[in-house]
Amino acid sequence: MEKQLKVFIVSDSVGETGEHVAKAAISQFRPMLQDVDFRKFAHIYTMEHIHHIVKLAQQQQAIIIYTLVHEKMRQYMHEEAEKAALDAIDVLGPIISTVGKTLDEKPAEEPGLVYQLDDGYFKKIEAIEFAVKYDDGKDPRGILKADIVLVGVSRTSKTPLSQYLAHKKIKVANIPLVPEVEPPEELYMVDPKKCFGLVISSEKLHSIRKERLLALGLRDDAIYATDNRIESEIAHFYHVVDRIGCDVIDVTNKAVEETANDILQRLKLI
Amino acid sequence: MEKQLKVFIVSDSVGETGEHVAKAAISQFRPMLQDVDFRKFAHIYTMEHIHHIVKLAQQQQAIIIYTLVHEKMRQYMHEEAEKAALDAIDVLGPIISTVGKTLDEKPAEEPGLVYQLDDGYFKKIEAIEFAVKYDDGKDPRGILKADIVLVGVSRTSKTPLSQYLAHKKIKVANIPLVPEVEPPEELYMVDPKKCFGLVISSEKLHSIRKERLLALGLRDDAIYATDNRIESEIAHFYHVVDRIGCDVIDVTNKAVEETANDILQRLKLI
Repeated sequence: MEKQLKVFIVSDSVGETGEHVAKAAISQFRPMLQDVDFRKFAHIYTMEHIHHIVKLAQQQQAIIIYTLVHEKMRQYMHEEAEKAALDAIDVLGPIISTVGKTLDEKPAEEPGLVYQLDDGYFKKIEAIEFAVKYDDGKDPRGILKADIVLVGVSRTSKTPLSQYLAHKKIKVANIPLVPEVEPPEELYMVDPKKCFGLVISSEKLHSIRKERLLALGLRDDAIYATDNRIESEIAHFYHVVDRIGCDVIDVTNKAVEETANDILQRLKLI
Repeated sequence: MEKQLKVFIVSDSVGETGEHVAKAAISQFRPMLQDVDFRKFAHIYTMEHIHHIVKLAQQQQAIIIYTLVHEKMRQYMHEEAEKAALDAIDVLGPIISTVGKTLDEKPAEEPGLVYQLDDGYFKKIEAIEFAVKYDDGKDPRGILKADIVLVGVSRTSKTPLSQYLAHKKIKVANIPLVPEVEPPEELYMVDPKKCFGLVISSEKLHSIRKERLLALGLRDDAIYATDNRIESEIAHFYHVVDRIGCDVIDVTNKAVEETANDILQRLKLI
């Protein structure tokens, strides 16, 4: 039987962290869950607000997941939830306490500090804009300016992977490879260590492309999805990456997050 | 005095969740920290690995933050850290236990389930590609296909904001406004409720543009950064958003995450 779950995310900032953790944990129950009803309470600063949220959670039998930087507020949430016999999970408290003890320092207790407009923030913004600017081989000069260059046939998640790495403050340029177009010379001028070829099994590529054609209302026997076409694209891909001398990553059935992690590990960036 | 902190992120998947929570908590100590030495241990499945990581953490006096979906592994990590007198914080365990109890179900205990290539995943990928395709007014047809349309003068974070919302599976088109170019007609055809104007104080815009010119090696008195130019751009912006009839959000000194949260709240999407 499929079940319903209500989750309240309570934060003194935007609630991003609580949502992330909640989703990761709850994914472990996904096959049994029809859907999860997430409700976010952002910018919660007062005890009065917390009191009302706990009352509401009690009425709806919701689980509370909270990220509150003030120790007093965490304490109050804990007590209120206990009084209401509700489960309330403190996401940040244990880490803040441990780090405070380790450093022998008091935390700033200032909501939203993680979103401070500091150097790291601007580096991230710059990397996101870079990835958009140098997406899909739009401007080959990006290849020489990038921290990482991705090459691959179409439908190997180059764009989302570039964006994901941008969120890690890494500047990525991506270049599509098609047999008809000579790849830009710049590809052979970069350090092959910072270049990665993305490949996908021809069966998978075939099925993705068929679906895409159908979604576009085209016949699925268009040249784009034929076996011959796919084989020749993949052969051309290997020809180019061999010449570059870069690593090749098989992204078949891999989420972007996993491919990104693979790349970061190869570059020893994590 | 500035201090050093070592943090080990241990995960049976890519370690994204642990990293996110660690950064949010540790940002509360940033003014006192010189830098934080994060080290990520991804795809950790065996007790032997955990044993070695705890030994290493002991040598380096690191704090451990872990996301492990197997209860046995979490238990083992807890015991090993206790034996080594180390702080080890379990990020997922408390939520997994609570949800299991609430639903009266056992978790799947399958690492990386949150990255499953399901409908939600493909919607996100599609939204990321959409935002790249319809960035910076490249193709006005995007306006009619988008869930959200952003308009604004240059340097109001339209591109990163579009990407951030894409990660929430929302398709965003963004349109730059400059006095010399008539905005696309499509802007006046969409529901004004899904359109948002982004504005920034003229002082801030002035200083951003001066910096940008200097970074480009140009003189800072170029027309792009003059007060007159900025005033006329902002006047034109208000003229257009008035005609659209959409909300205006002031993004001065606001992080992209905060602006996104503001938009999602106005649309009642959270």
